[in-house]
Amino acid sequence: MKKHNFSAGPCILPSSVFKEASQAVLDFNNSGLSILEISHRSKDFVSVIEEARTLVLDLLGLQNKGYQALFLHGGASTQFLSVAYNLLEKKAAYLNTGTWSSKAIKEAKLFGEIIEVASSKDKQFNCIPKNYSVDQSFDYFHCTSNNTIYGTQIKEFPSVEIPMVCDMSSDIFSRELNFENFDLIYAGAQKNMGPAGTTLVVVKESILGKVSREIPSLFDYQIQIEKESMFNTPAVYAVYVSLLNLRWLQSLGGIKAIEKANHKKAQLLYSAIDNNSLFTGYAAKEDRSIMNATFNLKSKKLEPLFNDMCQEANINGINGHRSIGGYRASMYNALPISSVEILIEVMNQLERKA
Amino acid sequence: MKKHNFSAGPCILPSSVFKEASQAVLDFNNSGLSILEISHRSKDFVSVIEEARTLVLDLLGLQNKGYQALFLHGGASTQFLSVAYNLLEKKAAYLNTGTWSSKAIKEAKLFGEIIEVASSKDKQFNCIPKNYSVDQSFDYFHCTSNNTIYGTQIKEFPSVEIPMVCDMSSDIFSRELNFENFDLIYAGAQKNMGPAGTTLVVVKESILGKVSREIPSLFDYQIQIEKESMFNTPAVYAVYVSLLNLRWLQSLGGIKAIEKANHKKAQLLYSAIDNNSLFTGYAAKEDRSIMNATFNLKSKKLEPLFNDMCQEANINGINGHRSIGGYRASMYNALPISSVEILIEVMNQLERKA
Repeated sequence: MKKHNFSAGPCILPSSVFKEASQAVLDFNNSGLSILEISHRSKDFVSVIEEARTLVLDLLGLQNKGYQALFLHGGASTQFLSVAYNLLEKKAAYLNTGTWSSKAIKEAKLFGEIIEVASSKDKQFNCIPKNYSVDQSFDYFHCTSNNTIYGTQIKEFPSVEIPMVCDMSSDIFSRELNFENFDLIYAGAQKNMGPAGTTLVVVKESILGKVSREIPSLFDYQIQIEKESMFNTPAVYAVYVSLLNLRWLQSLGGIKAIEKANHKKAQLLYSAIDNNSLFTGYAAKEDRSIMNATFNLKSKKLEPLFNDMCQEANINGINGHRSIGGYRASMYNALPISSVEILIEVMNQLERKA
Repeated sequence: MKKHNFSAGPCILPSSVFKEASQAVLDFNNSGLSILEISHRSKDFVSVIEEARTLVLDLLGLQNKGYQALFLHGGASTQFLSVAYNLLEKKAAYLNTGTWSSKAIKEAKLFGEIIEVASSKDKQFNCIPKNYSVDQSFDYFHCTSNNTIYGTQIKEFPSVEIPMVCDMSSDIFSRELNFENFDLIYAGAQKNMGPAGTTLVVVKESILGKVSREIPSLFDYQIQIEKESMFNTPAVYAVYVSLLNLRWLQSLGGIKAIEKANHKKAQLLYSAIDNNSLFTGYAAKEDRSIMNATFNLKSKKLEPLFNDMCQEANINGINGHRSIGGYRASMYNALPISSVEILIEVMNQLERKA
């Protein structure tokens, strides 16, 4: 029996993607070779990574606008460093909206002065700071668009006149934004793009080449652009599965279509949380993420019963992050609305029982 | 029809590994979930990475000897940096045996003084330098055990009284060595360990914590040890397929058994190269790699015919590296001896025809 997978990441991908990805491990493109044993320099794989890079720019509406899409190693955490390596000359402005922003700040501090222009730490990161300003004295502004742990999401990005860098690991390809407002977007693959093991970087070329330090080759975006994401052997399979997933998204109608579905799922679940007397939401209502809904049982006593009921209903991965506890239902692109309906049904059953 | 895959990496893995790896993409451990959609913090995956780490130390004979095995991101190229970040205080000694050593040297230079204690560059890297010495004034000595591009391999490692660091990307798990002589071994997975996308680091803990610089968290071996390779989301699938491959190796009888098979394959192919009037080997005989045999047709005119004959015989991936041309037959652990026999048969057919 297939599970209802609300895992926060790595997360559910479409079952059609799993099928094709499984077949390619046995025989890729009828080549008589597994996707796991082919050279990354083979025509077949070069065409995979090229198509993936093109699809990314197409889906984001950034084709022919001076941007490059790269598939790199190391997870978004490596980008915490790479961003600073490539862009930080003197000082940068960071918005602190939780664990991931805080980690990005910590690592960037090795390279220059980091100013937190705003933080919601005093509110346990249950909301997004507003009404801050970022002047032109900074090398760049960095923010995290969606905070998986707290279930908050930036709805309106500030208007800044310096390069805007955004960690979109957990909501890229889930909603329409004016992506041209961003100069560098990065995202670990393992939410809406693909499996763990590769990281997307979308960068406007004109912001590069302006720092005075020597950058290690592997982290130098200009070198990675020149080498077409193949400075070293890329994570072949993770890139391939990402391509399958991007193709799926395109076939559905792209970001516009999936955003509609995502809003519907989120609306259903949040109204169930608000209308069920046993539950309470964690994040401030106006900042609620459409990807990760965080919520708690008002009475901790009911947790064992609710957990059992979820398990019985084949619901997987709704425990909150170990740092804040409670529950978290992640509703990434590939999660069907039927899974959300099942979760709501279990929540309502609990209310009737309790 | 299955190919004879001599690809230099990513490379052939056992077909039993491909089968199990393919199945896990559909349903991992009968969990109702794909290996690609499970949390890296789930019990199932934690047990995968723990078993893989244990198996590595078991196979290398390093269990309970003060070593830790880590599965990290970024390919061996990231280790060019990490090694220097963690170990280079003032100056380090590097042996230059080709492209990969040269790249390791280039990146380490960002962190301190690098002395090339010996180099075979003036011989187009067709041999391994001998008769050099490494004194105790260096922070560590770095070498590359096997050079995929040139087909050379270090048979005897120097005896040094400083930490010995070795890039074993292309021959780890292929031959018995006294692994205790090494203080840090690293290897991109995509040869004898698994698919591209994860990197093994085996490090003696006692050499760590001695540099004065601040190390980015992701590259700090001590942090990765403490976090059990999960400072950030690991490359789940690449680690899983590596585990399957390590299990396969153990079931065969470990490194001792595979080394015997590897020697047999290499012996067969090298004697075919030496005995065939049309071919000539690239690497100095005493330094020939048992993993990658590099050779040339004496007459370039025969290349198109030989290429066609190879293709007809379902032989894949024997073109030499683009930097030196010619041919390269990589005979990693999973390559069956029957594939080597087919290649030799084609070489002999060519001799009869020409």
